[in-house]
Amino acid sequence: MPSPTTQTSKDVLNNNFEVDYVIDYRFATTGKVEAEAKFIKLIKALHQVGLSTEVRNSDNCAVLIFVKVASDNHLKAEVYRSRVQDWLYGVRATAPEKELDNHLKQEPITDAERLRLVYMLITKPAEEGGAGITPKTGDWHGIESIFALHDHAFNKTWIKDLTSKTFLDAKDLTEIRNRFGEKIAFYFSFLQSYFMALTFPAIFGFSAWILLGSYSPIYAIVNAFWCIGFTEYWKKQETDLAVQWGVRGVSKIQRENPHFKHESLITDPITGENIKIYSPFKRLARQLLQIPFALATGIILGTLIATCFGIEIFITEVYNGPFKAYLAFLPTVILTVLMPTLSALLTDFASKLTDLENYETTDAREAAMVRKVFVLNFITSYMPIFLTAFVYIPFAQILVPHLDIFQLTVRPFAEDTKQMTTPKAGFKINPNRLKKQVIYFTVTAQVVGFALEVIAPYFKRQVFQKVKSVKANQAARRGGSAAPVTVDHPEESDFLTRVRTESELGIYDVSSDLREMVIQFGYLSLFSVVWPLTACSFLINNWIELRGDALKIAIETQRPVPWRADSIGPWIDALSFLTWLGSLTSAALVYLFSGEDGGPAGNPETIKGWGLLLAMFFSEHIYLLVRLGVKTALSKIDSPGLQKERSERFLVRKQYIEAAKGYDAAEAAAASGNGQGGKISRSTLEDEARNSTLTGHGTPAKRFWGRQRGQDDTISMGRQYISKAAPNETKKEK
Amino acid sequence: MPSPTTQTSKDVLNNNFEVDYVIDYRFATTGKVEAEAKFIKLIKALHQVGLSTEVRNSDNCAVLIFVKVASDNHLKAEVYRSRVQDWLYGVRATAPEKELDNHLKQEPITDAERLRLVYMLITKPAEEGGAGITPKTGDWHGIESIFALHDHAFNKTWIKDLTSKTFLDAKDLTEIRNRFGEKIAFYFSFLQSYFMALTFPAIFGFSAWILLGSYSPIYAIVNAFWCIGFTEYWKKQETDLAVQWGVRGVSKIQRENPHFKHESLITDPITGENIKIYSPFKRLARQLLQIPFALATGIILGTLIATCFGIEIFITEVYNGPFKAYLAFLPTVILTVLMPTLSALLTDFASKLTDLENYETTDAREAAMVRKVFVLNFITSYMPIFLTAFVYIPFAQILVPHLDIFQLTVRPFAEDTKQMTTPKAGFKINPNRLKKQVIYFTVTAQVVGFALEVIAPYFKRQVFQKVKSVKANQAARRGGSAAPVTVDHPEESDFLTRVRTESELGIYDVSSDLREMVIQFGYLSLFSVVWPLTACSFLINNWIELRGDALKIAIETQRPVPWRADSIGPWIDALSFLTWLGSLTSAALVYLFSGEDGGPAGNPETIKGWGLLLAMFFSEHIYLLVRLGVKTALSKIDSPGLQKERSERFLVRKQYIEAAKGYDAAEAAAASGNGQGGKISRSTLEDEARNSTLTGHGTPAKRFWGRQRGQDDTISMGRQYISKAAPNETKKEK
Repeated sequence: MPSPTTQTSKDVLNNNFEVDYVIDYRFATTGKVEAEAKFIKLIKALHQVGLSTEVRNSDNCAVLIFVKVASDNHLKAEVYRSRVQDWLYGVRATAPEKELDNHLKQEPITDAERLRLVYMLITKPAEEGGAGITPKTGDWHGIESIFALHDHAFNKTWIKDLTSKTFLDAKDLTEIRNRFGEKIAFYFSFLQSYFMALTFPAIFGFSAWILLGSYSPIYAIVNAFWCIGFTEYWKKQETDLAVQWGVRGVSKIQRENPHFKHESLITDPITGENIKIYSPFKRLARQLLQIPFALATGIILGTLIATCFGIEIFITEVYNGPFKAYLAFLPTVILTVLMPTLSALLTDFASKLTDLENYETTDAREAAMVRKVFVLNFITSYMPIFLTAFVYIPFAQILVPHLDIFQLTVRPFAEDTKQMTTPKAGFKINPNRLKKQVIYFTVTAQVVGFALEVIAPYFKRQVFQKVKSVKANQAARRGGSAAPVTVDHPEESDFLTRVRTESELGIYDVSSDLREMVIQFGYLSLFSVVWPLTACSFLINNWIELRGDALKIAIETQRPVPWRADSIGPWIDALSFLTWLGSLTSAALVYLFSGEDGGPAGNPETIKGWGLLLAMFFSEHIYLLVRLGVKTALSKIDSPGLQKERSERFLVRKQYIEAAKGYDAAEAAAASGNGQGGKISRSTLEDEARNSTLTGHGTPAKRFWGRQRGQDDTISMGRQYISKAAPNETKKEK
Repeated sequence: MPSPTTQTSKDVLNNNFEVDYVIDYRFATTGKVEAEAKFIKLIKALHQVGLSTEVRNSDNCAVLIFVKVASDNHLKAEVYRSRVQDWLYGVRATAPEKELDNHLKQEPITDAERLRLVYMLITKPAEEGGAGITPKTGDWHGIESIFALHDHAFNKTWIKDLTSKTFLDAKDLTEIRNRFGEKIAFYFSFLQSYFMALTFPAIFGFSAWILLGSYSPIYAIVNAFWCIGFTEYWKKQETDLAVQWGVRGVSKIQRENPHFKHESLITDPITGENIKIYSPFKRLARQLLQIPFALATGIILGTLIATCFGIEIFITEVYNGPFKAYLAFLPTVILTVLMPTLSALLTDFASKLTDLENYETTDAREAAMVRKVFVLNFITSYMPIFLTAFVYIPFAQILVPHLDIFQLTVRPFAEDTKQMTTPKAGFKINPNRLKKQVIYFTVTAQVVGFALEVIAPYFKRQVFQKVKSVKANQAARRGGSAAPVTVDHPEESDFLTRVRTESELGIYDVSSDLREMVIQFGYLSLFSVVWPLTACSFLINNWIELRGDALKIAIETQRPVPWRADSIGPWIDALSFLTWLGSLTSAALVYLFSGEDGGPAGNPETIKGWGLLLAMFFSEHIYLLVRLGVKTALSKIDSPGLQKERSERFLVRKQYIEAAKGYDAAEAAAASGNGQGGKISRSTLEDEARNSTLTGHGTPAKRFWGRQRGQDDTISMGRQYISKAAPNETKKEK
């Protein structure tokens, strides 16, 4: 029985019948003989690595295999091994204590640690001591998922607790870490820090909205400084949390990528370790494909967005015929239909590209994927506003007449061509368009996005259940049975129903939640100068977001595997990039739109190119300087994590020095040299001098060092020299 | 007797009578009684820490105290302690072996290590086990210098060896490291890498000079890429060398700054270690003084340079009276007189400012000083060219008429005011001025600088000897004696003469040599597009420079204390900064001066502001992108240093795992769980089941896990479920 850490967790473990993981094995599309053979193989593989199993029936051609660690000692040994490995790779500062039970009393096994290690036991390749089970691949094709069971009692109190407080404290975050692992805890920490930091721009933005209005240079500067401050603060905070949670540098050693293909296996001549080699140059060459990918993505999505943008402008501002109100929705419809399809296709392609880059660890693979996903999201999220601010408003008078090419979208409805032609003179841009768009993206889209996050999974579940029952019916028609085979034991019945429901849930993806927040930060950094209330909207949104995400984890998805992480990964680079870009866009927006006339109004001739560029140039370089300053200043300030690390290092040192008492010989020798120079050196040197006389005066060096025996000789000789050469004391020294 | 590492060093040690350090104690300005008291205190302090001493007379009211470590074991213990400390602070990957003599056989003590440790013994504060002797301060006011003796035999072969080869190899650099310490070895490595890297821009620059001429955008791009490549390569190389030499991170632990003043002394509650605290906020506040300092420096030196520049333009291009040829030297004279004085004053002020910032270690203090010195040198070195390129040539027609204010410099010589007035129309700028200036700074100034480096110390020595003899004569007049008091022992006479000469030599400052190279790199990065032959000049210059510096160390200066270092320090930031700035200046120079008309010729109206800014903007961002790419690519490539570190870590791991064989109990428990699941879990579970029967069926969890006993039960149960639910094999699987 795994040693439970707290009373609460004990109750719930009992509630869950001490089950660590459930393997959902499905055979609706597999023949009977094959299904049985694969099942036997699975059970044997699990027992091989010291796991106990129980099997229960599930609906629709599936069985549920319940897994727990067979013996408590086995779990303890796994924990110990993992902690020693952490220490060897420098993740932990101190080696775990050699007395195992003592050690576990000091650092109890958390839920997250136990679940992670059991999951590793199930999925690690055989040569590393695992069962090598990868769901949905190869022999394990029938395994739909491997999931841990929710701790419902904890989830209930957790959600209740979260909704009753405004800010999470360190204890709450540690609790999340102990339950759901560092990766999810990092997301919540980030969200929490971001939420707290948002209070400043929310208050300042509200004041600026009242006092300064839009496009205020003061707001832009303060906002940029806040962005720098927050980004740099989080970088520091991230490292600090990683140290406190004992996961610093863990991303380097975590999980080998199961799809990694090595070119050659070499044995290190020094260490004898087997190393899987994949040429870094080859990978670099493949990584270069990201550049054409980013360009292609930009062109494809950019064209789509620009086209819809053009059609919209054409219909709302040029077209003057019937159905105008309805036709205005046309671009939205096109976008809604095409964008998700294109995005999905491109994401899929990005994933293939990332696989081609062939990373050693899943963390490296994920980081590479995040970079590509960011490019995609960057284009879809910010491009419409970029088009309005830097194409439509400055160049509308030149470009709009060319929008006549979109006549074909309205031809069927127009009564005459005049309705579809730009007026020769007097076309006026819509000056509110930019602000409206920013408000749409920072308020409406956030609300819609949140609603989708919570409602979509519900429908998804419904659809999947339908699909599954169809599949099962097919199997039934081929001779199987769709109804449960045996009736559940009454004692287990509730439990099994719950497990069957959980088996149908989706998988929680922390990366997409992080992406959402980073993209949101981008609106603040890039465009909030247009509408200073942006941060207020985000502040409210994020309070709900955090609770919604907790609810999603607790109810909408399976309990996530508690992976470790030492940071929020490459999203931090995205934050830095957005802050940087913000220094450029904000300067440009302020330069273009501030002042009495409210912007170029579609006429590019009113813009002074060198002025715009100079504003951006200065803004960017001030940004870079301030960032350097903030970075330097923050690096000087101590933090609890760094203090912890230092003191741990010192303890190691102390232990070592105590263990090294054996050097007393060398130390004593040193001490003898350290003593009152006179007596000791005199006697030894006299011996040496006597020896040198015996062997014919020794070397010149021996004779040189033999002339003054010990410090007394040196002193008396020196005094002679000095008294002869030094000036008499004609004056007393002061 | 210290254990000599090689045969050569043994010979020379004998030659130097095994002397480690010589302390030059002077008392020309001290009274006899005080001089004797201080002398006695000095000798006692030295013996206290296990050093042997001999005293000999020197000229002009001075004695020379010869110091060596009293016992070989004492030295060994010091070496061992220092290496253990390195390991504890993470500088070494492996702990030194516990068997001392074995360990020293594997890693012999180098000359540099011995000299460093002895120097530390002499200078470390008493509470850290040293004699606490700081030359020229407090009680040690009479100590002029503490210096090691040159190994003349080695120096001779070294210089000979250097002059006979074009490139230094790794062995040469390791030799320098073993003799003069890592700090100087880093300088030579840098110089060597820079020299080798220069071959590319030298060849390319020569071709560009022939084929493309000045201001070629192609040259500018290639040059910028080379600068990025070299800077990033060196960063990697630097880390690699630090790992190979076992000094990575050494700058953090090296030497406490003797002038550090702590605010409070706190005892760490966890570690019990005494920590000297100085508030980082206070330091930060003081560091902010650097900004007004940089501004003031800019204004003071800038005004001086701009004034001389204005006078020069006025005399050479406006003034038309007698003595023009002689008056043209006036600004040079002003600069030559005022600049060194101002620079010295400002450097002194910078040094005071750095002391005020109150750093814990000498390395941190030095780094802070380097930053300030770079600002000074940046202004004095590049400002004249900046003025020509970006003020004189674009704006001359507007500015030159205002130069009439400099009439007073030539008034005594002019025959009438017409000679001193700008012609109303038709003033033509000197289009060759920029190129001439660049050639001056990159050829003439380099040659002059080198000559000064070699000749100046000679004169300095002459002057100092004069001063000293005057002082001694003063002392003599007060009753002392200037002539040597006793005649040297004939066996030592040559040796003592040599030591007396060495005691008069200057101290080698590696930082100023590095500065010279970094400033040189700046000309290449910032302005070489004006004159593509720049790199050729530097290539030739640096071949000589490296040998000249070696000669300087060997002959012109005292043997330097072999300090350690893990990099070239903040100079690397200076290189990055210059490369960055180069991307801006090169773009601006190319935009302004390329093309048929050869630049704006003094008329700013011919310049398109937005074009210039756009060129700079693009250039800078391409630079940043390329730098990111190069950095990423380089970080992917393995290097010998990193390999060494990895394999050392692995060995530690292996040792630990072997030492941890004591965990067999836990391992065995795990292994039992790992065995053939069936039998073992069956027996244990049967026991458990029996127990649960005895205690009334146990918990629900126990009953749940008891239903299927071992894998065979699970398998047979699962087969039942599957055979009932699964589809019949209507088709054979493929």
